[in-house]
Amino acid sequence: MASTEKRKDDQEPLDTDELREAWPALSEDEQLEGFLRLPREDAEDLFTSLGPHEQGQLLGAIPSGQRRIWMRALAPDDAADLLQELEDPLRDDLLMLLDEPTRREVRALMAYAEDDAGGLMSPRFARVRPDMLVDEAIRYLQKQARGRLEAIYYAYVLDSEQRLLGVCSFRELFAAAPDRLVRDVMQSEPVTVREEMDQEAVAHLMKRHGFLALPVVGADGQMKGIVTLDDIVDVVDEEATEDVQKFGGMEALEAPYMHTSFGAMIRKRAGWLAILFVGEMFTATAMAQYEHDIAKAVVLAVFVPLIISSGGNSGSQASTLIIRAMALGEVKLRDWWRIVQRELAAGLTLGVVLAVVGATRIVIWESVFHTYGAHYRLLAITIALSLVGVVTVGTFCGSMLPLLLKRLGLDPASASAPFVATLVDVSGLLIYFTVAKLVMGGTLL
Amino acid sequence: MASTEKRKDDQEPLDTDELREAWPALSEDEQLEGFLRLPREDAEDLFTSLGPHEQGQLLGAIPSGQRRIWMRALAPDDAADLLQELEDPLRDDLLMLLDEPTRREVRALMAYAEDDAGGLMSPRFARVRPDMLVDEAIRYLQKQARGRLEAIYYAYVLDSEQRLLGVCSFRELFAAAPDRLVRDVMQSEPVTVREEMDQEAVAHLMKRHGFLALPVVGADGQMKGIVTLDDIVDVVDEEATEDVQKFGGMEALEAPYMHTSFGAMIRKRAGWLAILFVGEMFTATAMAQYEHDIAKAVVLAVFVPLIISSGGNSGSQASTLIIRAMALGEVKLRDWWRIVQRELAAGLTLGVVLAVVGATRIVIWESVFHTYGAHYRLLAITIALSLVGVVTVGTFCGSMLPLLLKRLGLDPASASAPFVATLVDVSGLLIYFTVAKLVMGGTLL
Repeated sequence: MASTEKRKDDQEPLDTDELREAWPALSEDEQLEGFLRLPREDAEDLFTSLGPHEQGQLLGAIPSGQRRIWMRALAPDDAADLLQELEDPLRDDLLMLLDEPTRREVRALMAYAEDDAGGLMSPRFARVRPDMLVDEAIRYLQKQARGRLEAIYYAYVLDSEQRLLGVCSFRELFAAAPDRLVRDVMQSEPVTVREEMDQEAVAHLMKRHGFLALPVVGADGQMKGIVTLDDIVDVVDEEATEDVQKFGGMEALEAPYMHTSFGAMIRKRAGWLAILFVGEMFTATAMAQYEHDIAKAVVLAVFVPLIISSGGNSGSQASTLIIRAMALGEVKLRDWWRIVQRELAAGLTLGVVLAVVGATRIVIWESVFHTYGAHYRLLAITIALSLVGVVTVGTFCGSMLPLLLKRLGLDPASASAPFVATLVDVSGLLIYFTVAKLVMGGTLL
Repeated sequence: MASTEKRKDDQEPLDTDELREAWPALSEDEQLEGFLRLPREDAEDLFTSLGPHEQGQLLGAIPSGQRRIWMRALAPDDAADLLQELEDPLRDDLLMLLDEPTRREVRALMAYAEDDAGGLMSPRFARVRPDMLVDEAIRYLQKQARGRLEAIYYAYVLDSEQRLLGVCSFRELFAAAPDRLVRDVMQSEPVTVREEMDQEAVAHLMKRHGFLALPVVGADGQMKGIVTLDDIVDVVDEEATEDVQKFGGMEALEAPYMHTSFGAMIRKRAGWLAILFVGEMFTATAMAQYEHDIAKAVVLAVFVPLIISSGGNSGSQASTLIIRAMALGEVKLRDWWRIVQRELAAGLTLGVVLAVVGATRIVIWESVFHTYGAHYRLLAITIALSLVGVVTVGTFCGSMLPLLLKRLGLDPASASAPFVATLVDVSGLLIYFTVAKLVMGGTLL
């Protein structure tokens, strides 16, 4: 809090790093004020480091006479991402601030969905011909470097039809003897991605191969652009946030927490909460079946929250593990039988652990406070056996449901939580009261 | 399953991509068998794409006569990561397979913790002197490229004491006039990281600036190495997995699901599950206070699971949102008051939504099945008011606890789930039975 107050007192230009750090937490007015006070070069650093959503907000707030330099500071793929966040007429106004060739590039990129390879790529890659000498290729790249290039870690070898023949890392080209032919130095059969490939799949491929950039090719083999690793880092973060928010039982937000409107946030949260609520109503239906048993032995009701929360916790552990392992490719659908064995064994073991803790607690409470009366041994046995059953079922359901949802073509991350919760709570109640009837039948029940 | 069977039938060499894709899900024997059948070059691609843990397992399984080529295929930072995963004598055996200068580099890197900048960095960076001409610098880099370089996207400008003066992107150097001095082309005051900086902070800095590599400097300003973006992508993935597993109420696993031993997995899971269980025992204590009320109106017990699960779900939504927003830097501790206002309003709104759904359900059930008897209106009011209270409290606790834990210097991701669950369940019961007494006092209670 100290730094916010300080900022208001003295009107010194802000440190860029400080402003960048605080950015997501500032209001739009504070952002604009801080941005306009930065020296030109720092402001450009800050601007290009923002996400498209934040850039769009800022540009919307900047006086229209000053927008041109900022639009022109963006690489075409970033400009396209930004414009895709905006609505006309602002979108069209900003597009017209670009020079004619860039505008053409950006228009082409805007035709792609934001989250496929085409939407991530930059058309400004370094290209050479297969029949150039290494020496010529380096001089040709030097010329390209003075023009408009996103980056030069790889030189792409294209034929006269712009079809991709191979790729040279800049290091390889640089280390090669100057009089060799590019075609003899290049790696043929490069790893490529198609324009319409989903960004998550692109990220997966890039991480697997450890490349800094991947070439994007069209259906005809023509090279369209490159996707670079820095775009992918954002994707990895985005996907992780989406997964985490879905685990938390809500729809993924599209913008940072502080910049999501109250109405949008309620809509994202109320939907799943209501679905979960309707699912959990089955617990009331299940409980209603045992009203007579509860009336006879009210002590049974006392342990209901403990029993169902144990099932729920073990279920969410198991589903978290499996969902994340699937997301990272560590686990495939065809492993289901090994997972069944492993999770059944884990569930039983964990259930026994909790059963021991639970039964011990009842025995101690009874001997100290005399809470549970003459039948406390039967109660301890009921609780212990129920816990073994509930935790085993919870673990099993928690691990199998994500696999089942995936098999059905649904998103395991977003749909597992509510299904597991309802299934585990309702089956937990059934197990508990069934065990109680078996153990206490004839005495308490 | 089809592809596993196919693989066992025909003994054709495997497709590398197929093997890489299936890798995490294969047993160690299957991994070794597949790896040894690959052509040399494909095997190298696969080997370098594996994580240090997987590389270590594979090297341990490979006949010792064949290990040398694989050790020598690794960059020094990757070799150090791998060796840090292993125990002596295998670690020492593998270290001795490296050539003398690399061994020295690797030994130096192994002195760093695996998860700080020193542990991630490579000592093989491209260096130039400030008083070289651009032309000379390019030729000097060409010579370095033929030797041992990790990458050449940036040339680092060092003085004679190896202190970092500035940095040139390769593109800038390449585009500059050949007769300019490096010191006039370079960017001075480069962004640097210290050896002991935590990898998460390095990732944060790198993403913020959008650099492909960051220089690592010691306390004396001497440059020690570079951390490259591809190391950071792994970090981002790792941290996201850890966060997700902590959300799921367990300790983070250190290895992929399928490669974690049963015992290790149980230990990681049983601890938190038992803590949660002990926490949830307070629900039994709370319920015990209301045994007489439940005995008088058993219908109250019927709705206990529904009420507490609603509180739990709204709490986990809120804590997920805030924890992830903190992890991404969108929310700071000093924003707590804005978060309080926002989440109280959100909790009230969400509570009203659920209250309407819940009360409607009771009224419909009563009119169709006549389940709840003459006092169903009082019951509907009790449930509705309790839901508003429970969801508001759940949302409030869920959003504030991560901030409080952070303030106390604890990890908000790992500790929030159990605290929120217990707090929300116990306070939910108190709210529910208090509301019931107020609404039903004199009639049912």
